[in-house]
Amino acid sequence: MITLNVDLNDRSYPIYIGAGLLSHNSPVLQHIPAKRLCIVTNDIIAPLYLTKLKNILTGYLLDEIILPDGEAEKSLANFDKIMSHMLANGHGRDSTLIALGGGVIGDITGFAAACYQRGIHFIQIPTTLLSQVDSSVGGKTAVNHPLGKNMIGAFYQPQAVLIDTHSLKTLPVREFNAGMAEVIKYGILADKDFFSWLEQNRQKIKNNDEETLVEMIARCCQCKADIVAADEKEANIRALLNLGHTFGHAIEAEQGYGAWLHGEAVATGMVLAAKLAVTMNLLEVSDLRRIENLLSYFDLPLNAPADMGFNEFLIHMRRDKKNLAGKLRLIIPTAIGRTEIRDDISEELLKQIL
Amino acid sequence: MITLNVDLNDRSYPIYIGAGLLSHNSPVLQHIPAKRLCIVTNDIIAPLYLTKLKNILTGYLLDEIILPDGEAEKSLANFDKIMSHMLANGHGRDSTLIALGGGVIGDITGFAAACYQRGIHFIQIPTTLLSQVDSSVGGKTAVNHPLGKNMIGAFYQPQAVLIDTHSLKTLPVREFNAGMAEVIKYGILADKDFFSWLEQNRQKIKNNDEETLVEMIARCCQCKADIVAADEKEANIRALLNLGHTFGHAIEAEQGYGAWLHGEAVATGMVLAAKLAVTMNLLEVSDLRRIENLLSYFDLPLNAPADMGFNEFLIHMRRDKKNLAGKLRLIIPTAIGRTEIRDDISEELLKQIL
Repeated sequence: MITLNVDLNDRSYPIYIGAGLLSHNSPVLQHIPAKRLCIVTNDIIAPLYLTKLKNILTGYLLDEIILPDGEAEKSLANFDKIMSHMLANGHGRDSTLIALGGGVIGDITGFAAACYQRGIHFIQIPTTLLSQVDSSVGGKTAVNHPLGKNMIGAFYQPQAVLIDTHSLKTLPVREFNAGMAEVIKYGILADKDFFSWLEQNRQKIKNNDEETLVEMIARCCQCKADIVAADEKEANIRALLNLGHTFGHAIEAEQGYGAWLHGEAVATGMVLAAKLAVTMNLLEVSDLRRIENLLSYFDLPLNAPADMGFNEFLIHMRRDKKNLAGKLRLIIPTAIGRTEIRDDISEELLKQIL
Repeated sequence: MITLNVDLNDRSYPIYIGAGLLSHNSPVLQHIPAKRLCIVTNDIIAPLYLTKLKNILTGYLLDEIILPDGEAEKSLANFDKIMSHMLANGHGRDSTLIALGGGVIGDITGFAAACYQRGIHFIQIPTTLLSQVDSSVGGKTAVNHPLGKNMIGAFYQPQAVLIDTHSLKTLPVREFNAGMAEVIKYGILADKDFFSWLEQNRQKIKNNDEETLVEMIARCCQCKADIVAADEKEANIRALLNLGHTFGHAIEAEQGYGAWLHGEAVATGMVLAAKLAVTMNLLEVSDLRRIENLLSYFDLPLNAPADMGFNEFLIHMRRDKKNLAGKLRLIIPTAIGRTEIRDDISEELLKQIL
């Protein structure tokens, strides 16, 4: 087991990463302050892991909320459903919410924990690769609004995160690969050694080699934890984590949430950002090729949907949270392991690559 | 003008208190970071002060949301309405939300500011006595749930608070008096000199003497600011501010929100807490009489509703947020200017005074 510490002063918390952590004498138990617990999960994860989790939590007063699977469930209506369930079951301010599932479950449960009686304890057990390397670190919680993803939310840190790599065995290959897009993202944006390590270990990763997966996830979490510790509220460098996301969110919004997986949209978004950088003479073509090759190895899409051109992207990109005072901002890779926030991208340039 | 500073490290903010601050070159303008603003108010306050406020804010891109008046509007549905309005009007993370109104408007607008794109700037202009001395200090924001008041919310601090005592001239007498219950509360719970000052100045207060009102409000805000600075998240002494509120919330819930004004319910709640203290030999009868007399002078109710006995109170009090591990906790005055949190109140004792 690897234990990382996310350093945020009085909101610091540990991430436990290992194979089989959900069946051992779990380190997460020490982070539950009182006997009352509520587990939030979905109807895909519940049959696989809910009983396992409940078996660890003997001696607690447990109840559970099982949502349908899918991004569409990350709604204010389901947030309300969690609130109503908690109140109807008499949960107090010393209750703990546990998120068992992927990013959708983590985000909505975290937001519920942030708001229930103005904030209760919260533990994350991410079961998808994407949520393990991304949404479980950094305290971004949210629900979607029909007019935009993650528009209603809070910065709220969990008490602890438990990552059991065993859960990746039951993850569909397409979702595992989508998670790899975010893994590769860390290499591109901040760590060229990690990018090379991924190139060297790609076969072991594809074969679900446990030791390799634990190391890979730990390196991603450490990378994100370092960035979040330096800039919790995204005043500056935390924005770099959005590499590929401005294009990606546009794809997800235009195609309808769920048609493309988030990681797939981010993969294409990173390629588009890299192409923009090449056009601007900021990135070597050889680096673009390495990015494309590694993404391809994990069967990730490199091109925008056939029905999306310049105009379709622009409508959505103008609505991005990173924009200030109406200007478009984009994260651009300038080498493997180095990214910049640029405000000087003309619509003309954007047109060339789309 | 009196300026107080609420000391919360990087979340510190000023409170400006004075007569006519809404028509002067307002000190609040320096706390707005960008040109986009949205004002949230209600249909009682809008005809009285919205134009006045907009005249101060020339040069800004303004829009507004006017909710119906009343506690029932502090709902998740209206929170959603604010989110939708903000998104539809293209507000970004540098927009500012301004709450113009009483506690309902302040609470829901503050919660909206806390959650919109995970947090934007927020300015409070409380127009009722209650919101000026209570909800504008301390960062408690929330909406109600059908199963309980303020059950969905966040701790979120404004950039600044502007209190213009002129707004009290248009406040109905019954609401002014309800606000006086919270004013008197500060005297009972923490400041016996202030309680005496209120006894001496009660006629000036009733006559709306401006200088007296500015001093009174400033003393209340300072008292609350000191307590909040010592305990922002209500881990301990902040709970003392709930004097009278456990009984009060039970009255409001049982009678239906709005039948009794919040301050009226708190007035009765404080008398019940004081009676409990007398029964336990913790408070002199003469202090109970002084409390009753001062509340009476402002026409506040001293007795529980005729249709509420022990059982009706108990159902609601068991659901209180202060309760830990199922035990009832109550705030009890032990003298004018001194209160304690007690866990040792038996249901038998409660029965004697109800």
